[in-house]
Amino acid sequence: MVDSVTAQERAGERSGPRRKEEIFAASLELLAGQGYDAFTVEGVAQRSGVNKTTIYRWWPSKSELLRDALLQSGTLAFDLPDTGSLTGDLTELAGRVEGLLAEPETRAVVEAALVGAVRHPAMRELVTQFLEDRLGRHQPLFTRAVERGELPADLDPALLVDAVAGALWIRLLVRRRPLSDDFTGQLVALLADGISAARERAGRRRG
Amino acid sequence: MVDSVTAQERAGERSGPRRKEEIFAASLELLAGQGYDAFTVEGVAQRSGVNKTTIYRWWPSKSELLRDALLQSGTLAFDLPDTGSLTGDLTELAGRVEGLLAEPETRAVVEAALVGAVRHPAMRELVTQFLEDRLGRHQPLFTRAVERGELPADLDPALLVDAVAGALWIRLLVRRRPLSDDFTGQLVALLADGISAARERAGRRRG
Repeated sequence: MVDSVTAQERAGERSGPRRKEEIFAASLELLAGQGYDAFTVEGVAQRSGVNKTTIYRWWPSKSELLRDALLQSGTLAFDLPDTGSLTGDLTELAGRVEGLLAEPETRAVVEAALVGAVRHPAMRELVTQFLEDRLGRHQPLFTRAVERGELPADLDPALLVDAVAGALWIRLLVRRRPLSDDFTGQLVALLADGISAARERAGRRRG
Repeated sequence: MVDSVTAQERAGERSGPRRKEEIFAASLELLAGQGYDAFTVEGVAQRSGVNKTTIYRWWPSKSELLRDALLQSGTLAFDLPDTGSLTGDLTELAGRVEGLLAEPETRAVVEAALVGAVRHPAMRELVTQFLEDRLGRHQPLFTRAVERGELPADLDPALLVDAVAGALWIRLLVRRRPLSDDFTGQLVALLADGISAARERAGRRRG
């Protein structure tokens, strides 16, 4: 139960205590189960079985712990697709978001985070950081698409990400409709066709 | 303070008590201020100054009162655009949703409803009914677009509505970013171009 952190470890040889993944998992479970308001470092200590003092040593506040749990936990992570085409990559990406929302545990985390973001400025800041971080991680996908000439360089990828994530949010979490009618596929096809048209127009302007 | 409803009135000659709009306004204010959990018919009576018994006579439950307030109140209503083109109509429609989210009072109602929808099945049912109702009201816009040959008949308009509403939700309520970079215009243009491409493809398949 007792985790000791030496000054050396704290100075950066390690990027967290030994049982970091368990602490992150407990943090996300607690957020999902009780929401942002009721989230406490004490609760995470209890759930993970890691000493409270250890957790505080690495994360002096609730928001620092939650930020690292959201950004670094394997629970919300997925590999970047690289199918060779923007449509393929967007389809894969949308499918992975769909997968996160289909899994009750991760769905509950996403729900608690998005609901908390509307109510609490601190939670909103965390969600914004999370979305920025994911957009940064996905950037190579969009850079490759620009290099292949599939995506106009002046089109903000955040627009695509917000449209896909937002539509999935409304459909799955608000309307609670199944996606069996290939909702994601149709949406990605629509956006991809829209991007092609924008690219062709830009090409004609240059030509 | 005392509103009396005769049997005749109750039987359908009128569709609600005299001070219906005030009751609806008070209901939405209460939802916005306190959320779905703390919403009570008593609270609405207090805020609107209408006798509790009168309200109960027309709306026997909290969810019936909230449903009618969401569906019928002028607060969340807007006229259907008819600009002569699908792109024009979608731009107008997105602008009106943007307007609702820019106004603190209506924004608070939308936030409380969407947040409540994630947490409470009863509130979710109300939001789903509200979205269905709006989609029904907007249907003439999509029917006209199909008649003008602008929208393939097999493309579900709900997809367009979810993408625009979802993207605005993520951008305005989660990320809290301003829309000064013509976010809505770019998104609608992308979707409209995507629809054109889908239509042309469908035309070639037929041709």
